[in-house]
Amino acid sequence: MNTKAIYRFAQNNAEGRAEQKPLLGGKGANLAEMASLGINVPQGFTITTEMCVDYFKSGGKIPAGLEDEVRKAVAWLEQQSGKKFGDPANPMLVSVRSGARSSMPGMMDTILNLGLNDTTAAGLAKKTNNERFTYDAYRRFLNMYANVVLNLEHHPFEEALTVQRRAVAEERKIAIPADVEELARVIPDSELGALNLKQVVEAYKAIILKKTGKSFPEQPFDQLMGSIEAVFKSWNNARAILYRKMHGIPDEWGTAVNVQLMVFGNTGNSSGTGVCFTRDPSTGERRFFGEWLPNAQGEDVVAGIRTPQPIAKSATSAGKALEEAMPEAYKELFAIQAKLEKHFRDMQDIEFTIEEQKLFLLQTRNGKRAARAEVRIAVEMVAEKLITEQEALLRVDPARIEQLLFPTIDPKAKNTAIAKGLAASPGAVTGKVVFSAEDAVARAEKGDAVVLVRVETSPEDLHGMKAALGILTARGGATSHAAVVARGMGRSCVVGCSEVSIDYEQQMFVARPGGETVIVHAGEVITLDGSSGKIYVGDVPKIDPELGGDLGQLMAWADKYRRLKIRTNADTPGQAKKARSLGAEGIGLCRTEHMFFDDERIFAVREMILSNDVASRERALAKLLPFQTEDFVGLFREMKGLPVNIRLLDPPLHEFLPTESSQIDELAKSMGVEPAALTRKVAELHEFNPMLGHRGCRLGITFPEISAMQIRAILAAACQVQKEGVEVRPEIMIPLALSEAELKIMHEIVRKVEQDVFAAAGTTVKYKFGTMIELPRAALLADELAREAEFFSFGTNDLTQTTLGLSRDDAGKFLPEYVDKKIFPAEPFVSLDQQGVGQLVAMAVQKGRSVRSDISLGVCGEHGGDPASIDFFERVGLAYVSCSPFRVPIARVAAAQAALKHSKK
Amino acid sequence: MNTKAIYRFAQNNAEGRAEQKPLLGGKGANLAEMASLGINVPQGFTITTEMCVDYFKSGGKIPAGLEDEVRKAVAWLEQQSGKKFGDPANPMLVSVRSGARSSMPGMMDTILNLGLNDTTAAGLAKKTNNERFTYDAYRRFLNMYANVVLNLEHHPFEEALTVQRRAVAEERKIAIPADVEELARVIPDSELGALNLKQVVEAYKAIILKKTGKSFPEQPFDQLMGSIEAVFKSWNNARAILYRKMHGIPDEWGTAVNVQLMVFGNTGNSSGTGVCFTRDPSTGERRFFGEWLPNAQGEDVVAGIRTPQPIAKSATSAGKALEEAMPEAYKELFAIQAKLEKHFRDMQDIEFTIEEQKLFLLQTRNGKRAARAEVRIAVEMVAEKLITEQEALLRVDPARIEQLLFPTIDPKAKNTAIAKGLAASPGAVTGKVVFSAEDAVARAEKGDAVVLVRVETSPEDLHGMKAALGILTARGGATSHAAVVARGMGRSCVVGCSEVSIDYEQQMFVARPGGETVIVHAGEVITLDGSSGKIYVGDVPKIDPELGGDLGQLMAWADKYRRLKIRTNADTPGQAKKARSLGAEGIGLCRTEHMFFDDERIFAVREMILSNDVASRERALAKLLPFQTEDFVGLFREMKGLPVNIRLLDPPLHEFLPTESSQIDELAKSMGVEPAALTRKVAELHEFNPMLGHRGCRLGITFPEISAMQIRAILAAACQVQKEGVEVRPEIMIPLALSEAELKIMHEIVRKVEQDVFAAAGTTVKYKFGTMIELPRAALLADELAREAEFFSFGTNDLTQTTLGLSRDDAGKFLPEYVDKKIFPAEPFVSLDQQGVGQLVAMAVQKGRSVRSDISLGVCGEHGGDPASIDFFERVGLAYVSCSPFRVPIARVAAAQAALKHSKK
Repeated sequence: MNTKAIYRFAQNNAEGRAEQKPLLGGKGANLAEMASLGINVPQGFTITTEMCVDYFKSGGKIPAGLEDEVRKAVAWLEQQSGKKFGDPANPMLVSVRSGARSSMPGMMDTILNLGLNDTTAAGLAKKTNNERFTYDAYRRFLNMYANVVLNLEHHPFEEALTVQRRAVAEERKIAIPADVEELARVIPDSELGALNLKQVVEAYKAIILKKTGKSFPEQPFDQLMGSIEAVFKSWNNARAILYRKMHGIPDEWGTAVNVQLMVFGNTGNSSGTGVCFTRDPSTGERRFFGEWLPNAQGEDVVAGIRTPQPIAKSATSAGKALEEAMPEAYKELFAIQAKLEKHFRDMQDIEFTIEEQKLFLLQTRNGKRAARAEVRIAVEMVAEKLITEQEALLRVDPARIEQLLFPTIDPKAKNTAIAKGLAASPGAVTGKVVFSAEDAVARAEKGDAVVLVRVETSPEDLHGMKAALGILTARGGATSHAAVVARGMGRSCVVGCSEVSIDYEQQMFVARPGGETVIVHAGEVITLDGSSGKIYVGDVPKIDPELGGDLGQLMAWADKYRRLKIRTNADTPGQAKKARSLGAEGIGLCRTEHMFFDDERIFAVREMILSNDVASRERALAKLLPFQTEDFVGLFREMKGLPVNIRLLDPPLHEFLPTESSQIDELAKSMGVEPAALTRKVAELHEFNPMLGHRGCRLGITFPEISAMQIRAILAAACQVQKEGVEVRPEIMIPLALSEAELKIMHEIVRKVEQDVFAAAGTTVKYKFGTMIELPRAALLADELAREAEFFSFGTNDLTQTTLGLSRDDAGKFLPEYVDKKIFPAEPFVSLDQQGVGQLVAMAVQKGRSVRSDISLGVCGEHGGDPASIDFFERVGLAYVSCSPFRVPIARVAAAQAALKHSKK
Repeated sequence: MNTKAIYRFAQNNAEGRAEQKPLLGGKGANLAEMASLGINVPQGFTITTEMCVDYFKSGGKIPAGLEDEVRKAVAWLEQQSGKKFGDPANPMLVSVRSGARSSMPGMMDTILNLGLNDTTAAGLAKKTNNERFTYDAYRRFLNMYANVVLNLEHHPFEEALTVQRRAVAEERKIAIPADVEELARVIPDSELGALNLKQVVEAYKAIILKKTGKSFPEQPFDQLMGSIEAVFKSWNNARAILYRKMHGIPDEWGTAVNVQLMVFGNTGNSSGTGVCFTRDPSTGERRFFGEWLPNAQGEDVVAGIRTPQPIAKSATSAGKALEEAMPEAYKELFAIQAKLEKHFRDMQDIEFTIEEQKLFLLQTRNGKRAARAEVRIAVEMVAEKLITEQEALLRVDPARIEQLLFPTIDPKAKNTAIAKGLAASPGAVTGKVVFSAEDAVARAEKGDAVVLVRVETSPEDLHGMKAALGILTARGGATSHAAVVARGMGRSCVVGCSEVSIDYEQQMFVARPGGETVIVHAGEVITLDGSSGKIYVGDVPKIDPELGGDLGQLMAWADKYRRLKIRTNADTPGQAKKARSLGAEGIGLCRTEHMFFDDERIFAVREMILSNDVASRERALAKLLPFQTEDFVGLFREMKGLPVNIRLLDPPLHEFLPTESSQIDELAKSMGVEPAALTRKVAELHEFNPMLGHRGCRLGITFPEISAMQIRAILAAACQVQKEGVEVRPEIMIPLALSEAELKIMHEIVRKVEQDVFAAAGTTVKYKFGTMIELPRAALLADELAREAEFFSFGTNDLTQTTLGLSRDDAGKFLPEYVDKKIFPAEPFVSLDQQGVGQLVAMAVQKGRSVRSDISLGVCGEHGGDPASIDFFERVGLAYVSCSPFRVPIARVAAAQAALKHSKK
């Protein structure tokens, strides 16, 4: 082999380092690092991600030479452990686990207890003096092997277990439930004895022979090679692909494979296994926190089947804490977690197993955490001098900050909760109840807000969890699948809510608050509070969050390090106020057309549209003028001293008229005009491609009186508010310009109105005149446009539509397929197409500056609130981004991160 | 003055030269040139165009110092002529004429006989011993002055003439017609005596005093300055502006003003005035040709009021030829015209006046000519060694070649003409009769082909002439307004057709062929043959023209000098054949969707669209496959050995379905599906902006089976035709691509189908795979696209729509205003927006070549047939342009011109 394929690790002796995550995966790199730190990890070795990449590149062939390397590593492991593969006296058993560069919990396959066969099982039983443990391990191994390596369906294996359950029930003279799941509840796996399990093993081997035509491979090395290949393959299973897409993980990375000596948490009550966090992953509180199960193996804790016990003692927790059950092991674990957090300088998510009182660390990684916890941990670690302000900023995912701005239940609300579970992912949401992932997707596609209610969730539920606003499960702990995934996705989540009993068949769940019976059917509305764990019937009043505490601190740092200004898109004083409270430094886009739909005004708007000559159009416009002036007075007052960018009327006029003939008749009646005349006008205004139609400044060119009215309103309002002693900074923005000539004509209208208004007001105000850059031609000729425009605001929504020839309203039908097929790296209306649209933005920036060096440059498309796009806007040197009020905090952090990243270079 | 404002000229003594047209205007420069050549021109001086430009720049002020310069020039002219302004004994009279860089016949104002007042009139009458002549000149001067300088309305002046007509009629005891026009016919101006005219002069002066509050200026110098300013102003009258827009003359040029000694063609029968051409402007035949009127002044010939007499003797012409009437003057004129054509190396349009047997040349210029004449003259001048082949090519306006490709009357047609006039502008057209410019415009807007029928035309009729296909006038000669303008515009035209009598009131005209009475009402269809001068009732069979004779010679030269290949856009073998006969060198665009609308196929197409799964879609496609294959077999056979570029399905699928509910019901019935299901599908496929919707290769990405069927048809057809021994060069073109990834996916489909088809056919064919560049993103990322694409074809229609954000289907409402306001120099769908869209084309050319140096580059938008755009495509170095079959000859000449122009540099 040309490259090193395998890295070995044992306590105080490891070939890898934590920094080698791209090569060794997160798990492998951190196992090596822990081993180097002197922490007791089961010895083992890591097969690099390069091997996985090679495997797929060659169309699914184990890289040449890898088998030899594995053989050598196994020999080394035998030497280290003093055990041997296939040795009946002292058999070596190993686990085989995936480990990608970025954590993908539960997405890929794992095989435990590898090395068992009939001979070694007998030997192990003898050595451990524990037949039940041995055959339990053996049947689990067979089951995983059949599933993961041989791809056999689960059902016959479940059936073999059922046979033994029935036997146990019969033996104990218990009535045998007809329902298989009920039987499994009555006789759980733990009730099966050694003999039952031996028979299960025999049955499993028979199934494998029958289904594959080959015996189960007895040779441990064959088992190992099969498992390694299966883990490689699991990188491309459907779940893993979906997860990567959702989390933006490149398909090209591949997974490493970790082979480690088995340690057993299920050898009896002096053993156990658990998961712990150095800080609370839900709140971020600095406390050692976790869950464990005595006498359990690996995946039992995270699977959510048994409700786990706490690690540390506490007043409220149920079950015996590790601290009480095994104080020595607890002490050692406590010391290690502190050491690991300090070493890795981040909150750690740690897996451990205790085998006969001896503590083994199986994994450490930077722990996933709720958005709120992410902020708190980052801020507190700065206070603890563990990290710098800049590092704190770079650790927070700005997109997740939106979650912190989710509404919370209004404390004044009188509603009583019907149930309470574990608060697993914060935020209060209201939605219709659904009981399956499919229903969640279907209802969400119709536009419903939904809450997904499940007994527990599994990776098969991912698409439903994505579609839901909130998730409620009856079982599982704070580290269950539902909790981990919901936090990652930013969905509100309550787990382990045993106070509700779910009936999938009847499509309902039942709660019994204070003895009363409350039944909630599918489609009924509930409110779920992921911050308190409480469940309510109906829509409970909520309040908007504030930017205080840790988040406030983080925002202060963001403001300290960012270069980009953050403005907001706001059309009303209310929105403007909200945005200021979230840190907006001006209005980057006020869409005046939104004001036209108001009940009081739409009549005059329609009258204006139906006018056939300038005089009657001006009469109708005169009715609108006082309203528009009031609109702007409100905005200027609210934004005292901050810039307010007002875009002149943009949509085509037909948007203000109905198209259905019944509506036309009704409108005609109310306006006192002939329906035929109105129908004619509607037909006359119809456009085949309204996006490319008579809109934007094209309206101002053909109907200058409309623009003149709006400009008059802006300048008159500015004069009025300035007289009140409030500083005003209006910016008049021309939409959809494609030439200098248009701007000249529009500028001339502005100058004419200005003379009038200033003379009437007896005062003047300073204002800026500028344009949207939202057509490719405008970007291509930005140097010419800059001769007239004092500012450019990139309208990246429309610029994306025209540059890509893609209608946002229509693309929904095929855009998902375009993202799936990687034609676009992301939906171009969500994250800027930097390759294409970005070229035009960069070109316009350069051309605009070449003519007017102090030109003000900003963006007001949806991309103004998208972190990846903000990073681009920082790089091309815009002055500000403008986004919807709720995204202002996201933009502040994203802007700081962009500044930090690019100032480093 | 900083610059020389005035250039003087007299026989063998001129300050200007022919090359100074930008400064002196065409008329002034050529007067100077003629003077230098020793030709007798009335002495005079030219005020430069710069003065006119200054006049408008300063907002309408006579440039400082100009008056002094005029005064000096007048003094010089007095000295030259021995006459004096205001001298009763020997008064100097002058004409004041406009003269722009490019000829704008009749568009601007002229003033004749300037210098007359009561005193000089009396003196002139005495000197010439001709009172009638003198007061006729005086009243004409007053009339022009009132109209041009004082802007007074015409009516009162006409009224004053009517008073004198009545007096004459009364005197002669003729019954006085009630109708004023009838009176004018009974007592024409020539019947008014000196006394009548004296009274007219008095009446005119009274009107001027009454209307302006000031007396008519008696001082000749004041008259002169007023007239100069009026000529400056006439540059910006509505007629002139419209003319410039139609002919692409920049508004910034301004006009020169020519002040010349008056010569009189109306002093009696030994005087006259005329217009002549060195070759026939209608046919191009090399013969001295023209018209004159004895005893007439200036504008009488071109005004078309009196029917003029021929210059040279001929068997057919009516009226006495100049050759007979004044043989000496004719001989001198003949020699001069030959000298002028040789000197200017082009066909000359000459104005002359004979005053008392003495010949004066008033003007020479390159004559306007019919398209057919343009080609013939250019070709014959090469044979005469007057010009080179290259010069000949550069002299032909390629856009006008289209006229030569107009159909002509089928010689086999049995129809009999109802009337015959002068063939003034060639081409046979059929249309509905209208009697006013307004009706012509209104009907044409409704999509009707119209023929405008007028007694005579005036500049007020320009918009109607533009809207009509053909123009028929009852009066006027080959140099009348109608004839000159129609030739310039490329409209078919018959003038002086006195065999029809027109009744505007009754909206009809009457012809009497062979004594029979034929009445044609407005709205009825006639056919007009501008090549023979014949008029027919109804739609007469026509035949398509051929590329022979002079045009064939010109095409041969074009092919010799051009670099660009010319392909055609053709969807059927018939179109392909037509295009080959016109010189197409391949198919640049075959739109496969046009084939889908065929009656036999649309059913299967709809079945395909309504399919809900791949299997049923493939079944429907299988029905289409044999049709598509036949389509391509036909094209390959027709284009033997030439490239055939086939674009895969481009429009969104809903274009193949009806939208009206009644049509949907009908279709559902005929297809045997539920109307509701069909309605649902139609609704599902509806798009807000179909231009930016699910079309182009987006269809191939989501429905690869559609593309696969088309590719199969192309390759199978190619194999079949190749087996027939015919060379095939198919090119498979992907529409609307915006990324390399799309092309990869489509290329993969092609490769899969190729294997199948070639295996089945037992042969292979060479083909090219490439893409349209019709989205800005495609141009921006052309380097990436070129990795997959072996050719680019610029789809400049869609590229214009997206770059400018302008829907071709919707822009009609405001685009004319955009051209009027000079936001665009020309309609961007007619002539490429070189500034904007052109930047993207140039960028894509450069980027495409950077990755694939031998990439084939062409254009297949409408712009491929537009000469200005072709010039651009030559400059950016495309390999070919593709246009509709009828524009192929235009493209050949335009390509040659572009090559000649840019190889010179």
